[in-house]
Formats: sequence, C-alpha cells, structure tokens
Amino acid sequence: MAQTIRLYIKEDLAPEKTIILDENQTHYLRDVVRADKNTKIQCFDNKNGEFSSELISLEKKQGKLKIIQKIKEHTQSPDIWLLFAPLKKDQTDFVIEKATELGCRKIQPIITQYTITKNIRLERYIAQSIEASEQCRRTDIPEISEAQSLKDILRGWDNTRTLYFMDESLNSPNFLTALKNIQTKKAAILIGPEGGFSEEEQKILRDQKFTQGATLGPRILRAETAALAALSCWQLISGDWSH
Amino acid sequence: MAQTIRLYIKEDLAPEKTIILDENQTHYLRDVVRADKNTKIQCFDNKNGEFSSELISLEKKQGKLKIIQKIKEHTQSPDIWLLFAPLKKDQTDFVIEKATELGCRKIQPIITQYTITKNIRLERYIAQSIEASEQCRRTDIPEISEAQSLKDILRGWDNTRTLYFMDESLNSPNFLTALKNIQTKKAAILIGPEGGFSEEEQKILRDQKFTQGATLGPRILRAETAALAALSCWQLISGDWSH
Repeated sequence: MAQTIRLYIKEDLAPEKTIILDENQTHYLRDVVRADKNTKIQCFDNKNGEFSSELISLEKKQGKLKIIQKIKEHTQSPDIWLLFAPLKKDQTDFVIEKATELGCRKIQPIITQYTITKNIRLERYIAQSIEASEQCRRTDIPEISEAQSLKDILRGWDNTRTLYFMDESLNSPNFLTALKNIQTKKAAILIGPEGGFSEEEQKILRDQKFTQGATLGPRILRAETAALAALSCWQLISGDWSH
Repeated sequence: MAQTIRLYIKEDLAPEKTIILDENQTHYLRDVVRADKNTKIQCFDNKNGEFSSELISLEKKQGKLKIIQKIKEHTQSPDIWLLFAPLKKDQTDFVIEKATELGCRKIQPIITQYTITKNIRLERYIAQSIEASEQCRRTDIPEISEAQSLKDILRGWDNTRTLYFMDESLNSPNFLTALKNIQTKKAAILIGPEGGFSEEEQKILRDQKFTQGATLGPRILRAETAALAALSCWQLISGDWSH
C-alpha cells in the first residue's frame, strides 16, 4: 500500500513544465516521505486539474519536478461555505482540516460577541487546508478568508446564498426540514462560538431573508462537532455526496 | 454564562440520597471547576434520569452530594452503533468523544486485517465517553465494548440490525440512497482502518444479508472524519435529529 504523494503547486501546471519546489515541500519530500529522484508525484494547481510528475532533483533546500501529463480534470468543490467563530488552537486546526475533507469551498472566520479567540492565524489555516486538500485528493483548495465581524458579513451578504445557522435555542426546525425547504445552489453554514450567539445576534440572524435557523438534535454539540455534522448533512442532501 | 456542572454517577439516583463521589470526581470539582460546598450539580445515572443535587461536603479526597429531585427523564440515545478500527491515540480519543456527542448508543472497537493499532485502551475510552456524555447532556452513556475481530462480529450479528460499511472502492450507492432504501430501526456504521478493508474482508462484507455498502462523496475521508460524517448522516435521516 504505497501512498500516493500529492502536492499543491502555486503556479499553473502543464505537461513538460519544470516546477521548482519551495523549501517546505522539499523538506516534506526529503525528510517526511523520504522521496528520491524519480519518485512519482501527483500535482494540482487549483485551476488546471491534476498532473502526474516526476522528481528530477532533490537537493537539500530545493527540489524540482517535471510535469508529465494531466490525469484528472479540475473540479471545484460544492458551493458551500463555513462561517465559524475561531476556537482554541487545536479545535480550529481540526475544523479547518475536516471542513476541507468535507468539501467546503470557502472557510470564513467570524468574530461574534462571545468569540473568545481573537487570535486568527490565517497563514496557519491556509497551510492546513492545503495539506488536507493534498490528503483527501481535492483538485481545488478552499478559499480561506480574512476574519470579519458577523455584522459586516451579514451586511454584505449575497441574498441568493442561504445562510443556515445552527440554533441551540431549539426554536428552529430540524436541519433535514430546513435543507428540504430551501433548495438554493449556494449555501453557507454558520456556527457560533462555545457561548452561542448573543440575544442581539440571534435577533439579527432571524431578521434576514437569506438566513435559516436549524437544529442538530437534542444533545449539545461542541462548536467543532456542529461544524462537521452540519457540513456532512448539507453534503448528503444538497452537495456532491448525493450524486 | 455560568456553566452547568453535570456528573455521571455509577449508582442508582433518587431524591434524598447521599452520594459519595470518587477521587476523580472530587478532584474535578475541587481543582478544575473549583466548586464549593452548596454548589448545585446535575447528576444522571444512565437509568433513572437526571437529578438536581447539592454538594454537601468537599474534602481533599472525597466529596458528598445530596440528591434533590428529578429534573429530566432518562432517554436512551438512538439505536446506532459505531464499529471502528482503532486509530492513533488522538484520533481514537476524538472518535470516542464525537461519537458520544453524536448520540451513538454503542461503540465497538474492531480488529481488521489492516488495523495498525492493536493497543485498545478500554478504560480510557470509557472515561472519555463519560466525560463527553456529561458535556453534551446525554442522560445515558454509550456502551463501550471489548475489541473483537471483524469476522467474529459478523458471525454473531443480529440480522435485523443493518450494518452500513463505508466503501472507499466506490462500488456502493451513496449513503443517502442506502439510508432511504433500508429503513431498519437498529443500525450500525462500520469504518475501516486508514488502509481500508482487505479484498477478503470486502467480499465477506458484501456477502452478508444485513450489510449495506455506502459512499460518502468523491473525496477520501480520514477514518475519523468518515465515522463522524456517517453518524451525522444517519442521525439526520433515521435518528433523533429528524424529530
């Protein structure tokens, strides 16, 4: 069971092209997977698809790849976004990794009234989403946006994108009903921080035309569990798990 | 936002009863949540429901609770089991915690041909499932079974319980179709190890009347992600998220 090595490459890929790997990728190939000259590697560029390639040199600080041919068309993940209030470090790492595996197109950190962690580490999130994309065989990578306040997000919202918010107050229909009632192609899932939404935020959320509250059963889910569960449910009913 | 303190108590609860807490619970109350004499605590016993109680003493190694009254009836979580091949320590911890939050009734470690971790730490799993039950406000705790080989599990299987196995070979219908086609009240979800099922195991799984393969979309999910995603989907369609 030799593992396929997959790498996301920041520049456009095409057959015959030579790619110079950055220091992190070179370190990964040399020291983590212990690749050699001639090792086959699959590359994708978030635009032109996936390509076979071969390692043609692997010096200490720089490796070079030769692209061979296209092996898979580029596919964009379903048009689902995750809006979440950053959690403690490990939980945020976890949300980024899992949301990527679960085929989320965009991940948007949001600041709400009860958000505890204001330490948004965008570069770390991007690195993790790329690693997870390589691992789960996406040909695209999720867009990771700069943190915004919930109010600003709502103000600039595109009305044709349904925003499902997970409602701990249990005043909303269950998520299956919510998903069946509103069938928009574009959607987003909003998960509050551990303390939930403030009353003011709940009111604002209910007052928008594009929002839909939903519940995820009788147990209290941690924020990261709710994020994953909601993404899975959306994929099952409205995303690419139903093809 | 004072947090409710919830404790699982191993003995039967009833109003007026005095409960002697064990050393771990006493340590948790003294040093983690910094409870005092008179602190209100909610208790459940996995049988008689949830009770309000008050801490009547909190010595260094022993605390005592006085049960006040029943505040919630006992509810069993839906009849869904998770069968999973143990993973690395952190990932297994994660699966136990999340499966508990997602309302899994029984968690069964299984040994398959490609299972790498044979180090089954049942006591740790039990402790974690109790902690997660306290946190997510279950009134029951999941049953954690001794590890068994996949073959033994299949040999003793109750035919009326559908066993959904997540099929990386993509030869199975999607999970939504599988869930809609087979509507049994009792079900189980089987997740293989990172290396998947062996060909022999795949054949055996396909040959049983009570099994149903299912896919979870085009991306490759890590085992722990697949476990959570599948439990969420089952709850959405067949469990208590649809009430």
